[in-house]
This record gives sequence, structure tokens and C-alpha cells, in this order.
Amino acid sequence: MKTTRRLNLLAVVLVGALALGTTVAQAADLLSSWNDGPAKQAIIEFVQATTTQGSPKFVPPAERIATFDQDGTLWVEHPMYSQVMYCLERVPAVVKAKPELKDVEPFKTVLSGKRQAMAKLSMKDLEKILVVTLTGMSVDAFNAEVKKWLETAKDPRWKMPYTELTYLPMQEVLKYLRENGYKTYIVTGGGQDFVRVYSEHVYGIPPEQVVGTAGGTKYGYGKDGKPFLTKEPKLLLNDNNAGKPEGIHLMIGRRPYAAFGNSTGDRQMLEYTKAGDGARLAMLVLHDDAKREYAYGPAQGLPDTKVGTFTQALYDQAKKQGWTVISMKNDWKRIFSFEP
Amino acid sequence: MKTTRRLNLLAVVLVGALALGTTVAQAADLLSSWNDGPAKQAIIEFVQATTTQGSPKFVPPAERIATFDQDGTLWVEHPMYSQVMYCLERVPAVVKAKPELKDVEPFKTVLSGKRQAMAKLSMKDLEKILVVTLTGMSVDAFNAEVKKWLETAKDPRWKMPYTELTYLPMQEVLKYLRENGYKTYIVTGGGQDFVRVYSEHVYGIPPEQVVGTAGGTKYGYGKDGKPFLTKEPKLLLNDNNAGKPEGIHLMIGRRPYAAFGNSTGDRQMLEYTKAGDGARLAMLVLHDDAKREYAYGPAQGLPDTKVGTFTQALYDQAKKQGWTVISMKNDWKRIFSFEP
Repeated sequence: MKTTRRLNLLAVVLVGALALGTTVAQAADLLSSWNDGPAKQAIIEFVQATTTQGSPKFVPPAERIATFDQDGTLWVEHPMYSQVMYCLERVPAVVKAKPELKDVEPFKTVLSGKRQAMAKLSMKDLEKILVVTLTGMSVDAFNAEVKKWLETAKDPRWKMPYTELTYLPMQEVLKYLRENGYKTYIVTGGGQDFVRVYSEHVYGIPPEQVVGTAGGTKYGYGKDGKPFLTKEPKLLLNDNNAGKPEGIHLMIGRRPYAAFGNSTGDRQMLEYTKAGDGARLAMLVLHDDAKREYAYGPAQGLPDTKVGTFTQALYDQAKKQGWTVISMKNDWKRIFSFEP
Repeated sequence: MKTTRRLNLLAVVLVGALALGTTVAQAADLLSSWNDGPAKQAIIEFVQATTTQGSPKFVPPAERIATFDQDGTLWVEHPMYSQVMYCLERVPAVVKAKPELKDVEPFKTVLSGKRQAMAKLSMKDLEKILVVTLTGMSVDAFNAEVKKWLETAKDPRWKMPYTELTYLPMQEVLKYLRENGYKTYIVTGGGQDFVRVYSEHVYGIPPEQVVGTAGGTKYGYGKDGKPFLTKEPKLLLNDNNAGKPEGIHLMIGRRPYAAFGNSTGDRQMLEYTKAGDGARLAMLVLHDDAKREYAYGPAQGLPDTKVGTFTQALYDQAKKQGWTVISMKNDWKRIFSFEP
């Protein structure tokens, strides 16, 4: 009898803990790479408001959805998106299999290895490179290639695998939200199939919770009669700008309660999130730390780059619509897990 | 100290129970609407093989995906898909808003209410009806309309809401799989947005785990400046036949370990599932119970109908590739929850 009472008591305590979510003290532990300030405070207040039973802004667990842009929001995007690096580095193997491409542009330039010439490639050139390196093979063959590449490829500045260059404070936010019943999604302009290869291992986000730019596949049969899917050069979802809320509707079917981005490509996702009822959190990572990472984007007079454009207009909209800007320099105690 | 030991013991027991999944005796309880026989046995053996720690066919929890066709597999599809009923019943309201359609076919025939004339409508006619009743409105307006309709619409034979006409044995399989760590998905030829309105309430399946035929949406702003999504007449995914494995790849990104269907439209999904390594379960519901439900499909000499075609070729493939055919007549003790 005594044991039963004790177990019942334990059950009550456990259920109570789940219902209440993490306390403010626990949040401080989970967000230990964040400096105290408005950004950290906005995250904690949002979680408290949406997960505390009886709160007027309480959100039932099933509806707790949080979406994260990847490049520049969860990991380094400068000087080039990792996926573009993958495509460029795949070109020699593709040309080996299709020698007729050897003397054709833009493949010729990529094969030359001349960085300055490569930097001048147009969007149209880049598209041609993406098509031959991301489509035409089976889904399984593609996944295996990406996996192999990730194990050896290294970022030119840190000389480390790209998957080590995720932002520790954002990893903490992912965990903190999940511990409070949120389903975390990546909503990326990058390739859905590419990100799905490592999302679980790197972010704890399963492939089915990755929404990205997606092409069609074609079902067919191999010589052994076994069915397989081939990646087709047919765009189904361009998961940038307005494509982000459209992709969220297609793949999730619910409006997020929290959304995180870092560029104009995330504007509509943040607007859409913030336009919902109750408590909604919209946050933008500002790359203003030239020393520990990079400083770029026209906001606050930082230099512009090809990637992750954080315009002054975006900054103004954030201030006007109650989005929170995260200053990497001021809000983050540590940027990477390998830092002391 | 004693309490700590007891709590540790409890933790061990809990973790052990989770790792082992449900026992055979518990499975019998959960599948109480199933008669003993090869179908019930195939389900239990599959779950035991994939969830028992140390089993050579053990599947890690994160990879446990099971997909279910809806119409004719989870609920009644005869004499007409519920969603088609919805579209036909929406026609008067659409014509009221767009009076110019009143004297135009196929709307004229639908407005006449003559069942025989309506039964003769071509696929092209039906498409026109689907376009005006499923697109052109905001996502929120559509969801509200479907919800309202489901509350009052009734099946002509049972005089009950369609949502009451789910198969109890299949509801049990959904729960049994979920209790064993499987993520259950609907993969339907029906409209993704339509099914998502009631999937959580009716099947315990959240909207983000519904894959269906999907159209595009368009992001825009209302007069109040608030963003919203409009349903567009642009097909992104025809989730039938080869579209099912293609849709599974797009929306889930993993091959299922178990798949359930009832017609030729599910053939590729079952093939794709069964072609994976390890233990894979592929099941087809055969509608052979004219008394308690319906008997149709050319398999075993049953009459053919417009819906859910279970051909002899499908039956032969099932036997050849080790799929299990579920006989509603022989395998199901009860069909609906409202039956005694």
C-alpha cells in the first residue's frame, strides 16, 4: 500500500512537471550560452506564457510548432552556403561520369579551381551546377554521397567539418523548446533532401521535420525489379520568401508559434508566425560579430554580401512588428561549442 | 535511501517496458476487434520483431513509420468518397456567390439534385467541381467550411456523421502501433487539407502526419495588412499510385516499415514499403462483407465499383510478394465502434 501511494505521488509530480514545463531557473541553465538581455528574456517569457497551465496564452502541446531557418540562423552561411560547396566539389565526379561536360561552361570554370572566376558565376550558371549535382540519381545514392562528403569536407576558416559550425545558443533554444513540448522544424531555402541527411544527428531534428526547397522524384524499378525513387530536375517548392509560409502549410499544416531567421528570405515566415493569435515569437539573428564569426548585412551599416541579406528595411520591420533582433556580439556568450 | 532505490527500480521497469514494447497478451487486448487468424498474427509478429531489443529485425524508435491509406482502409469509401460528397454539397453555396455558374455544366446538373444524372458526370466534370469548391478561398475559410460540414453531413446508409464510420479494427492497429513507438501517417489520394481538418480528432493523427493530394497556396495580405494563404488551383502532389511513394519521400523522407491500403492506388506504396530491408508489413483491406459493410472489387469475383478497385492482379501481387490480405468478413469481429 505504501509503495502504491509513493508511486501515485511520483506520478503526480511527474505529470505536474510536464504540465508546468521548465521553470525560469531551469531555463537559465538550458540557455547558458546566452547573455542576460532582451533576446534571452523574450525566449523565456514566450515559453512561460505558452506552456504554463492557466496562462491566458497557454498553447496545447499538439499545437506547439517552432520553425528555424538554417543557413545563418543555425549554422555559418558565410562565405558560401555549405550546400553550394557540396555542389561545386561534386563537379569533378559528375564530369568524370559525363566527359562531354568537361569543356562546357560553367563546368569548365569550376574544374579550373580558380576561386576568382568561380565567384563570378551567375545564378544561371549556379542553377546548371545544382541540376547536375542534385538530380538524376536515386535518392539512396544522393544520401550516401552527401553523408560521405560531410565526413571529410571542411570549412576554409575553421578547418572543421561544417556540421561542427552550428551556433551553440541556437542549439540551446532548440533543446529548450523541445523540453517544453515544442516540435522543432527546420524551414530552409536549402535543399530538403540535403539537410535531411544530417538534421537528426546535428540538430536532433528528424528528417520529417525538415522543410526545404524540394524537387520532385520519380518512382521506377531497377533491373532487379526493386522499386526506387530518382531525383528529378523539377522544382516543387522554392522554400524562400513567400515559399516559406507556403511550404509550412504544405508540410506542417499549422501556423508556427515561434520562428527564427536571419535574412529577407525569412521575412514572410516571421510575418506569418507573428500574425497568429496569442503569444508568438519572431526572432532574427544579426551577424554583427566580425571577430568571433562575421559581420555583414546592410542593417546598422554592416557590409553587404551575397548571402543572408539583413536589410535596413527588414530591421525596421522587425522593430515595428515586435520581432526580436539577436545580436551575436551582445547576446551570445559563446558562439560555437568548441570555444572555451 | 529506500525511496531512491524504489524509484530507481521503477525507472528500470519503465525503461524496460518501453524498450520491449507491448507483450503478446497486451496486443491481444489492443486488437480485440480482430479474430485470431493470419492477418492479426502478421501484425503482432511484425511489431514483436521490430520493437524487441536484441531482435535481428529491431528498428530504432526514430525510424518507426507506418502509413495508412484512408478511403476504404480507415473508413467507408462506398458509394462515394466523403470529400466528393463535400464538394457536391458545396456547389449551391458556390453558385450563390458566383451566379454565372448556375446554367453552366456540370454545376447545373449538381444543382438539379438528380442522383442518376450526377452519377454520370465525367472525371473532367468532377475536376471542375473540385476546383471551384476546394480552391480560391483562404486556408482558414476552407478549414472552417469543412469543419462545419462534418458536423452535420451524414452517410446515406448509416445516417451517421462520416467521422463515425471508421473501422474499429484499424483504429486499434493505429493505437497498437503508436503504443509501440510507431509514428502513424495517413497517405491518402484525398485532399491533404481536407483530411487534416479532422485527422487528429478522428484518428489521433496530427495534421503534420497527413500526406495527401495537395495543391499550392499563395501568400498574400488582407485589407488589414495581415498575411494569409489562398488555396490555388495548382496541383503539387497527386497522391495516388506512384504519387504515394513520391509523396512519402517529399513529406516524410523515410521509407515506411508498415503500409496499409485497399486498392490499386496503394500498390506502389506497398511495393516501396516491402522493398526495404528487415521486417516490413504490407496489408490490403478486402471489402468482402456485403452484410456489415460492402463487397466490391474484381478480386475473388466481387462486383466492380468506381471506388477502391481491388483487382485480381493486385490480389495476385499481394500473394506473390508476401503482402497480407485482410478479409473484413473473416478477420474483423466488429467493423464499427457503434456495433454491439
